Amino acid sequence: MIDTLGYAATSADAPLAPFSFTRREPGPTDVRIDIMYCGVCHSDLHTARSEWPGTVYPCVPGHEIIGRVAATGTKAKGFKVGDVVGVGCMVDSCQQCASCADGLEQYCERGMTGTYNSPDKHTNGVTYGGYSKDIVVDQKFVLRISDKLDPAAAAPLLCAGITTWSPLRHWKVGKGSKVGVVGLGGLGHMAIKLAHALGAHVVLFTTSPSKKADALALGADEVVISKDADAMTARANTLDYIINTVAAPHNLDPFIAILKRDGVMTLVGAPAEPHPSPNVFGLIMGRRSVTGSLIGGIAETQEMLDFCAEHGITSEVEVIPMQKIDEAYERMLKSDVKYRFVIDMKSLSKSA
Amino acid sequence: MIDTLGYAATSADAPLAPFSFTRREPGPTDVRIDIMYCGVCHSDLHTARSEWPGTVYPCVPGHEIIGRVAATGTKAKGFKVGDVVGVGCMVDSCQQCASCADGLEQYCERGMTGTYNSPDKHTNGVTYGGYSKDIVVDQKFVLRISDKLDPAAAAPLLCAGITTWSPLRHWKVGKGSKVGVVGLGGLGHMAIKLAHALGAHVVLFTTSPSKKADALALGADEVVISKDADAMTARANTLDYIINTVAAPHNLDPFIAILKRDGVMTLVGAPAEPHPSPNVFGLIMGRRSVTGSLIGGIAETQEMLDFCAEHGITSEVEVIPMQKIDEAYERMLKSDVKYRFVIDMKSLSKSA
Repeated sequence: MIDTLGYAATSADAPLAPFSFTRREPGPTDVRIDIMYCGVCHSDLHTARSEWPGTVYPCVPGHEIIGRVAATGTKAKGFKVGDVVGVGCMVDSCQQCASCADGLEQYCERGMTGTYNSPDKHTNGVTYGGYSKDIVVDQKFVLRISDKLDPAAAAPLLCAGITTWSPLRHWKVGKGSKVGVVGLGGLGHMAIKLAHALGAHVVLFTTSPSKKADALALGADEVVISKDADAMTARANTLDYIINTVAAPHNLDPFIAILKRDGVMTLVGAPAEPHPSPNVFGLIMGRRSVTGSLIGGIAETQEMLDFCAEHGITSEVEVIPMQKIDEAYERMLKSDVKYRFVIDMKSLSKSA
Repeated sequence: MIDTLGYAATSADAPLAPFSFTRREPGPTDVRIDIMYCGVCHSDLHTARSEWPGTVYPCVPGHEIIGRVAATGTKAKGFKVGDVVGVGCMVDSCQQCASCADGLEQYCERGMTGTYNSPDKHTNGVTYGGYSKDIVVDQKFVLRISDKLDPAAAAPLLCAGITTWSPLRHWKVGKGSKVGVVGLGGLGHMAIKLAHALGAHVVLFTTSPSKKADALALGADEVVISKDADAMTARANTLDYIINTVAAPHNLDPFIAILKRDGVMTLVGAPAEPHPSPNVFGLIMGRRSVTGSLIGGIAETQEMLDFCAEHGITSEVEVIPMQKIDEAYERMLKSDVKYRFVIDMKSLSKSA
């Protein structure tokens, strides 16, 4: 076993603290990665604080991982020591069901193995995530990161990036598409960048007039203040597709009304309390759909990373030391981050 | 003008009663139809009783019309006197917008003209529907009815039939599809027949165990009692598609959970009070969609009618005289009809 160090939550209300644990020795198909950066996702906070059911303590969060290959198993031919690589929200899946066969491991019918807080078939414990010095992952779940990408700013691509990329591609957003993005946060800012780079006309919807300049700078063509009922009504039947990144409960009907016939709105945020129930007439009058989407498969994550390298796309990030994680969580709760915190793992050695 | 006779509601709480009015003389592209039968749709009741906003009195309901051509305009070359024809929920649309160009007049961007209670551009009043001796309709909105079809039993195809056919076809239900039908009423019984004839494996969901034998006889392969939580859970991730015909508010989550990855549930009933809000996790975990659908376009209505003639499909009907319409409404409210009332318009002359 490999002794390592991470930061863990030990209970729902304790601050995160240094935590010594072990990683498995790399098996034949494994890759051992020295973690350089790890992005901070809202899921980390929800899990660390038991806001979702099922947290096992100690819990080491983190699933937006960028690192350097430190060792490879004998059959892990896809990688070599020194490569910059990424690990996202999954580290395993059954590899046998229809979803795995379709490259959509996130929908694995036997349940994919999350990068943290999932049953770990190697240890019989739970998986520990990227708030740590290193990680050992089967090569199938390791992504190649182009040296054109800044590694710190690339980290959030592994969750915020793929979570927006996957539905944009699935619903065929491209040149000529008119696309709405609801909410300008970690996911929303990636959705703007990606939809813009795919050639779409992008309309950002936000409740905050102060975000307008940022949205335009990120690639939005228009910004609509979604509290302005007249502005919303004026846009009825104008968009082909909407990606809604807002997890707080809100009225979906004004957005549904903005879709053209056969338009689709994908929800990528799951509210703790339900949204007000959408009016069925809004769906019927225009054959509109409301759908959901969960992160993305490994093949499409690699496709997204390569697209980002080609188009010079990364996340807007604020790099923090590991020791500031609780402060970062508090600031995330106030949306006080532009637009993603990323932990510099070099800072971790100071906690040892 | 042509003097005619119908049955009209004169207020929200008055029984329907004989009503004398006029139809326009057929213009060059019009067809004058002697109405033989008219199906009774829930929409008729909602409109007659002002349960939906906007009823203009007197109101002559009826949009499942079968009749015989009595006269044709000089340019109405598609029809000749004596032909058996149908008229459904629409009698006009702009014919210029993208939806009309796509043969989806029901989604006309300028608003289609409903067969009753819609602004009538010929009279500047409102349209009067099929509870009447005759009707004059532009040939574009007149359907051909095969002589293989029983005319009384074919009437409900014009609304209940096309409302289920259109989404089944749009979502590509066919051989090998596993399809759920929620609710066994006027729409549900047509959905079973059509999905079965399209080659799908059909699972009917009902709250009423007493409907099981009927559902199987109509073409369902399986019947699930939707109140049985264990039976519902056992079917998680098994269906490609669900058509939900129930307009009463109900929990959608157990049905969403029964869809496979990328499965779609179409709502064709709009509840007066909203459904409980669906759990977004159910949509996200499997990229499932909830969508709506409104009747169908003229071309696909003709396609459905031809398919029904080829496969010997009609509605199960109970034929009533016009004078029994209020009693029929009361029985509909108790679901006491197998499965659609159809008015025999010969009875109307007795009211003159």
